[in-house]
Amino acid sequence: MNDTVTWIAADWGTSHLRVWLMDGAGGVIERRDSADGMGRLTPEGFEPALLKLVGDALPDGVATQVVICGMAGARQGWAEAPYATVPCKPPSAVQARLVGTQDPRLRVRILTGVSQDHPADVMRGEETQIAGFLALNPGYDGIICLPGTHSKWAHISAGEIVSFRTFMTGELFALLSGQSVLRHSVASEGWDDAAFAEAVETVMSRPERLAADLFGLRAGSLLHDLDGGTARARLSGMLIGAELAAAKPYWLGQQVALLGASSVAAPYRAALMAQSVPVTLADSERMTLEGLKAAQATKDTK
Amino acid sequence: MNDTVTWIAADWGTSHLRVWLMDGAGGVIERRDSADGMGRLTPEGFEPALLKLVGDALPDGVATQVVICGMAGARQGWAEAPYATVPCKPPSAVQARLVGTQDPRLRVRILTGVSQDHPADVMRGEETQIAGFLALNPGYDGIICLPGTHSKWAHISAGEIVSFRTFMTGELFALLSGQSVLRHSVASEGWDDAAFAEAVETVMSRPERLAADLFGLRAGSLLHDLDGGTARARLSGMLIGAELAAAKPYWLGQQVALLGASSVAAPYRAALMAQSVPVTLADSERMTLEGLKAAQATKDTK
Repeated sequence: MNDTVTWIAADWGTSHLRVWLMDGAGGVIERRDSADGMGRLTPEGFEPALLKLVGDALPDGVATQVVICGMAGARQGWAEAPYATVPCKPPSAVQARLVGTQDPRLRVRILTGVSQDHPADVMRGEETQIAGFLALNPGYDGIICLPGTHSKWAHISAGEIVSFRTFMTGELFALLSGQSVLRHSVASEGWDDAAFAEAVETVMSRPERLAADLFGLRAGSLLHDLDGGTARARLSGMLIGAELAAAKPYWLGQQVALLGASSVAAPYRAALMAQSVPVTLADSERMTLEGLKAAQATKDTK
Repeated sequence: MNDTVTWIAADWGTSHLRVWLMDGAGGVIERRDSADGMGRLTPEGFEPALLKLVGDALPDGVATQVVICGMAGARQGWAEAPYATVPCKPPSAVQARLVGTQDPRLRVRILTGVSQDHPADVMRGEETQIAGFLALNPGYDGIICLPGTHSKWAHISAGEIVSFRTFMTGELFALLSGQSVLRHSVASEGWDDAAFAEAVETVMSRPERLAADLFGLRAGSLLHDLDGGTARARLSGMLIGAELAAAKPYWLGQQVALLGASSVAAPYRAALMAQSVPVTLADSERMTLEGLKAAQATKDTK
């Protein structure tokens, strides 16, 4: 490894900016992050936010390549990077949107997202994690699940994203546990494996129970002193159960690779294993970096 | 009608306080309201809030009866009024909680709510609307649906609430349309009857579609310029469809009385009529007042 920054990999989401300063041999010199997510920036604010985080590391007299994935390429982001449409390989830097900058030391590209016409769906950032997983697991054929605020299920075949669906599970959990009447009954910590498993099972076998059982968490704490951690596990189980019921065409009879931070992936793993689905775990941040490296490498060969 | 206030009927919810100044013959002298809902008051704040609204109308030298229904009787309210447990008649003022006041011109009673052990459920305020409906429709046997923030379905037989379930449909709609990523795609006005009906039908026949289709509203507006009013109708249809799927044991083969403001009740009416369910509409505010009158009258005869 040498310490000259050759290019910069960046994951720019709604609530975070994460960069890796890369050397010429594919090694990471340094990882940095900031809270300057797309959600708090106007288009004019992106370049200054990037310079604040990496300006001191940019060599003079040369334009350093910056390859970005994620919401920075959304309509409300830095510059809109169009979508590639499934079926397609995860986009490379060749298809990326080149963004003009004031600072001559930057040469910025934003990777395109992926869209699906019917049923209408979009992703930005997850396609790069998928690219990273495929770079490490060439020839993988099966399902990739990316749990999170907006969980994605993608069918992968012959190196392509064939189809995918998005579920608002993480956002629903945050809204219900933090802002609805359930906030009085659902604790911010605590867990109960049995309550989670039972809730998953109930909603998967009878998905209409979701609407009926949500308020039961509030009533259960008022009438029967339902524990806040148990309520938390049950709410998570209901929402993940609803997601699994809807995503059944994806995972039934398939192997599933779960790409996520371990805290987010763990309940999905438990729920899928209860359905006898073989699950492989992979860390989402690592997959993002590998995907950015793959995108950059593709560009270099053209 | 004479203009001496004999007693005061009050509907004290989370976000509003509504009172009727009543004469001795069951007539309304005046209706007043304020935004001093339970949600913004500490226990000490209730008496001042009530006096601010009705103090000028209280006769001197006598304690005027105030009969209150709703969330003022919750644990976080003015004073906790315990629940009656189903099966039971809607509670009367006899069972109400007498609340001490500083001002000798007040004699305040808060009506009890109704609870159900299994499945755990609670209501506060809706039982008074039910009492009002039963006062106007003695002998009614069937289903009462009270759509709203927390919709209730109640099975009524022989003057009693036999069982009920609560659905967070209104709160989910508000959170999803106002605070989730869907806020960018769902307009605050506008409607599309066909989109609503189709969404109800889809989710009723396949309830697991709810989790899969929510994000489609966002993707549809990004990819296919889905109209914001159409998205609004579709979101409403998905959530009401999920509620109807779960509440099917209540309405299937039954007559349903819908108690609600017309804007809230209209989509429920449309969805139920599409299922060939006979529906009667009744205004919820009128039912509340009739229920408070019925509760007060019961007290007078003891």
